[in-house]
Amino acid sequence: MRATIIHGAGDVRVEDVADPQLQQPTDAVVRVLRSCICGSDLWPYWSMPASEPGERIGHEFLGVVEETGSEVSGLQRGDVVVAPFVWADNTCDFCREGLQTSCRHGGMWGADGVDGGQGEAVRVPQAQGTLVNLGVGEDHALLPSLLTLSDVFPTGHHCAVTAGVNPRTTVTVIGDGAVGLSAVLAASRLGAERIILMGRHAERTDLGRQFGATDVVAERGEEGITKVRELTGGDGTHTVLECVGTRPALEMALGVARDGGVVSRVGAPQYDEAPLGFGVFFRNLTVTGGVAPARAYIDELLPDVLEGRIEPGRVFNRTVGLEQVPEGYRAMADREALKVLVQP
Amino acid sequence: MRATIIHGAGDVRVEDVADPQLQQPTDAVVRVLRSCICGSDLWPYWSMPASEPGERIGHEFLGVVEETGSEVSGLQRGDVVVAPFVWADNTCDFCREGLQTSCRHGGMWGADGVDGGQGEAVRVPQAQGTLVNLGVGEDHALLPSLLTLSDVFPTGHHCAVTAGVNPRTTVTVIGDGAVGLSAVLAASRLGAERIILMGRHAERTDLGRQFGATDVVAERGEEGITKVRELTGGDGTHTVLECVGTRPALEMALGVARDGGVVSRVGAPQYDEAPLGFGVFFRNLTVTGGVAPARAYIDELLPDVLEGRIEPGRVFNRTVGLEQVPEGYRAMADREALKVLVQP
Repeated sequence: MRATIIHGAGDVRVEDVADPQLQQPTDAVVRVLRSCICGSDLWPYWSMPASEPGERIGHEFLGVVEETGSEVSGLQRGDVVVAPFVWADNTCDFCREGLQTSCRHGGMWGADGVDGGQGEAVRVPQAQGTLVNLGVGEDHALLPSLLTLSDVFPTGHHCAVTAGVNPRTTVTVIGDGAVGLSAVLAASRLGAERIILMGRHAERTDLGRQFGATDVVAERGEEGITKVRELTGGDGTHTVLECVGTRPALEMALGVARDGGVVSRVGAPQYDEAPLGFGVFFRNLTVTGGVAPARAYIDELLPDVLEGRIEPGRVFNRTVGLEQVPEGYRAMADREALKVLVQP
Repeated sequence: MRATIIHGAGDVRVEDVADPQLQQPTDAVVRVLRSCICGSDLWPYWSMPASEPGERIGHEFLGVVEETGSEVSGLQRGDVVVAPFVWADNTCDFCREGLQTSCRHGGMWGADGVDGGQGEAVRVPQAQGTLVNLGVGEDHALLPSLLTLSDVFPTGHHCAVTAGVNPRTTVTVIGDGAVGLSAVLAASRLGAERIILMGRHAERTDLGRQFGATDVVAERGEEGITKVRELTGGDGTHTVLECVGTRPALEMALGVARDGGVVSRVGAPQYDEAPLGFGVFFRNLTVTGGVAPARAYIDELLPDVLEGRIEPGRVFNRTVGLEQVPEGYRAMADREALKVLVQP
């Protein structure tokens, strides 16, 4: 079959690889209907040292169950399923607590001999715990929105949940990428009435307004902080959803948080050190969030997608075939595309 | 009157100062019955540049109301009151939310023309909001425990509360100083059944065991992390109460936290940068806490002290007169004394 392999910065190729086969009785094989490119795929696309034979990549996909191992129950050939971006048994203590990203028997796509999602098919470890049956057909109109349940929408939701967003909290969302816009949608879904979106790409912030943002701040750094504070009587917002992952974004997040407030971060941090000295301490700011346990949220979010109350798939503004995945990376890296859907 | 003035590192003196007088109609004057020396007073004692005329110091005291301004109600001459370590109006929006340390009309003792607590008397700004009437006599046997309501016990309590300690959470407390031991007592009071105290002074950790610690780990750094993990099946604890304030203590706190867990810090940070990179992110660790809004907790904690269910005043193991305050600082700095009570 064909699958995407990253060989280094700027070097993504679609190549012939072995067809996936069941290896463990807990495995399934899924034929991919839709996958996509994540903002976090761009970090290696920008910085990975050259590598041969390269690494499989992609961690967001939905598809059709082709085959299941002998210990997989509840799934059968033909089911249309979505996979969260970390696979997990969904039965260990961490999974039961809703932290499937720390599953005792889980792992990452594209690592340790596990397939990546940007290919024609995937061997899914711990299939019974990992996959969620969507109960839809292969040609369902909502496949793009259903695909966002794999990562980007639950990631925005995790950001809002861990920040404690509710109808009484004001919210700042930092970043107008697909995760930031998903965080806006998630905050709105949780009832937030005041959502300030910090971003400077009008096409994206326009979608943010449609997702529920009440204000848009294009300024960044100290100017951005000043602007958000002006909008909030000088105080900043109760919750700040940091959806970028850079150090300047985190600094801005801490700057716009109201005393006693919460900064939640879901952008994979591109820094090792965070400025949590006396000022942050004296203001009783909390820093929370982390890699989103998407699996924990899919059951809750699925009905809202299926019944059309939310349409998170609107973050996709370009679709490519599998052979055009390298072009998809380029388009996202150049900010031509917000998020690229892949239709093998 | 006599009051304590710090002139620089290692240079604490008791000197003659002007008697406090009402300046605002919201002021009161309180004659100090008991004050004490805080671990945080040691930071300037260790590092303050030489200064003349020096600065008033001390932020924990209880005493007798001598006089009240025309806008102070609910307090009268002769009331025995305790003052939280940050004064506040207790009516602004931050105060109503329980964040009196961010009061819009509050401030610190010993700064901006406000008296310090280590003296014979104190002018108390925002007296009605700041002071809590204890309803006891001047010679009450529990004055030491009641004095801890000013800072050290609510600080331990804030650490436990913000960490989310409850009967189902395991707890590590870092630091066997007075705040750490108070955090042990607070965690135990909140129902925690497993409390690991990290400290290496047997006399202090023995008191920690009496306050509720179930395990004591004397090792520090990587060895300490390994030991706590051994005690918890490899996982670490759900909550970590960081009661020291140094960078190594924070690193240890992050190292002993269970995935998905919370590190709360109440030791004033002696660092500007915290190691919150990808590892902490992937493990979904939260960093919370901050300067404790003691005023928010006094009403809840007072009955447990008055009725003898807890005895936080046991952290005092030396008592000095006002003229011996410099000797008290030396004894705490040399770790001869855990916490020094001052009886003017």
